[in-house]
Amino acid sequence: MTNGDRLALPPRSYAIIGTGALGGYYGARLQQAGCAVHFLLRSDYERVRDRGLKVESVAGDIDLPEVNAYNRASDMPPCDVAIVALKTTQNHLLPELLMPVVRPGTVVLTLQNGLGAEVDVASALGERVESDRVPIVGGLCFICSNKVAPGHIRHLDYGRILLAAYAAGYEPQGITPAIAQLAADFKLANIPYQFSRNLLMARWQKLVWNVPFNSLSVILDALTSEMMTCAATRSLSETLMHEVVAAAAAYDVRIPEDFVQKMLDNTAEMKPYKTSMKLDFDAGRPLEVEAIVGNPVRAAREAGVQVPQMEMLYSQLQFLDRRNQERSPER
Amino acid sequence: MTNGDRLALPPRSYAIIGTGALGGYYGARLQQAGCAVHFLLRSDYERVRDRGLKVESVAGDIDLPEVNAYNRASDMPPCDVAIVALKTTQNHLLPELLMPVVRPGTVVLTLQNGLGAEVDVASALGERVESDRVPIVGGLCFICSNKVAPGHIRHLDYGRILLAAYAAGYEPQGITPAIAQLAADFKLANIPYQFSRNLLMARWQKLVWNVPFNSLSVILDALTSEMMTCAATRSLSETLMHEVVAAAAAYDVRIPEDFVQKMLDNTAEMKPYKTSMKLDFDAGRPLEVEAIVGNPVRAAREAGVQVPQMEMLYSQLQFLDRRNQERSPER
Repeated sequence: MTNGDRLALPPRSYAIIGTGALGGYYGARLQQAGCAVHFLLRSDYERVRDRGLKVESVAGDIDLPEVNAYNRASDMPPCDVAIVALKTTQNHLLPELLMPVVRPGTVVLTLQNGLGAEVDVASALGERVESDRVPIVGGLCFICSNKVAPGHIRHLDYGRILLAAYAAGYEPQGITPAIAQLAADFKLANIPYQFSRNLLMARWQKLVWNVPFNSLSVILDALTSEMMTCAATRSLSETLMHEVVAAAAAYDVRIPEDFVQKMLDNTAEMKPYKTSMKLDFDAGRPLEVEAIVGNPVRAAREAGVQVPQMEMLYSQLQFLDRRNQERSPER
Repeated sequence: MTNGDRLALPPRSYAIIGTGALGGYYGARLQQAGCAVHFLLRSDYERVRDRGLKVESVAGDIDLPEVNAYNRASDMPPCDVAIVALKTTQNHLLPELLMPVVRPGTVVLTLQNGLGAEVDVASALGERVESDRVPIVGGLCFICSNKVAPGHIRHLDYGRILLAAYAAGYEPQGITPAIAQLAADFKLANIPYQFSRNLLMARWQKLVWNVPFNSLSVILDALTSEMMTCAATRSLSETLMHEVVAAAAAYDVRIPEDFVQKMLDNTAEMKPYKTSMKLDFDAGRPLEVEAIVGNPVRAAREAGVQVPQMEMLYSQLQFLDRRNQERSPER
């Protein structure tokens, strides 16, 4: 399929399930490129319905005075693509949120963090995955983007999505038609993308960074730069990374030897960075503890791999997350 | 030796090296009982020289308008007993502080926390341990006592000292004459005491509690009660306790199986308690990281025992301690 063919087709429709820093940003890019985009919102619904979405971006600003805004998934039309961009802490809502927007052949792309998002999507759709032939795609986002106000997103850096098809048991897949179609839309929308044939590898590789730095940033109230300049926490991050690599290996995911060192070197060179989990913590929002640490820990346990330091992060984060929620005024 | 014999002797002299919550409390009790006590002070020197020491205590208040106060160890007389009651973070000063107060036969009693205090004392005295026949005694304090103002100590609960003789390599010892003499003075001074023949056992047993609760109280900004009511941190404390028990076992210290459960049960029944390390942290003082976690971790490493969760506590505390010192106005 070439761009020439693509332009001859009617624009595809997208449901954005969760219009935050990720869903708002990518949805705005797709609408700007001519796709019919339907945004599901919660707290920002009225503001966005009345005044649209505004994106400040290093890749070019976007101003969308009018968008299709919804505060109930049941009001949304079935779409060609449903993008899941909720926090994983909301995944118990997926059946209710996905069912209305999915029809036979709808592609469901989850942009969620951590391990297990695709399993949650498949479980939410149940038999419809088979009966309606719904392809599930994992999208790993490498982006620095924040919601700075209702309907106002600030995209600070990066933006690439790594696309990989999901199949039961995370069996490696090729470049499926669903992925090729997404890529065609992303190209028009100026969203950088890459393909992976091995979703599970991509997920575990991202965890190599996320497990130590998201967790320790909350536990130690620290920026990445602070953790990298202290020899003790730098070394701790490294041993945590090796635990993640060992857990992955039990699932036939062979992360190359030099990957850990590369991650550490990259992090040392990054500007001081506040992780997504730390942003959630500081804002009093629930932490993605299960997706980022709990699910990998359980995967390791099930495979009989000892991950004592990940276990300890998990305990510490559960304590801090619970207390943070108890103290949070939103509750 | 009976109390009858004891009273016939001249009162013994004590040097209190470090007049804080411990040294101030026990020193005041000994002076009240008739011992000649010499207090070494730093920041509180002038105040205590001019106005003495005041102790509010559940075991009876003590008011000492006049005490022998010093701000330089070199001004102090040699004494029958030197009590080391500094924070272990000051142990690099021990040679300079101990040398003047020690003469042949002086007993050195260290009331310090954690693992290795007696080794530091022995190393500070060097050849004098042998040539001057200086007995070194470990004293493990079970007391809740704070310094609430210069020269003003508040003793809230408990107060017992577990006395055990030190010998090179922590070889178990009997009840030595040095210990019997200390006990006689403590009896007169209304200081509860017990004996142990196995100092190393006593040290490791105390670490079973101190390693998890002192460390996590700082890392998680938590009271003991909070850590015990959250299932995740309660379980984490338990696995940390088992790591301490395993490290101890490598040194022939066999801590009974039910000790961990007893410690957990006791802690669950305690009033909400802020650990000594957390008090130091909140006051911006250096933490006793090496004595309480670093030395046990190194002991485990040297014995080839894996203690990954203690290692992680150690890294986290080093990070937090360093940053706390950088931020502390005292520095």
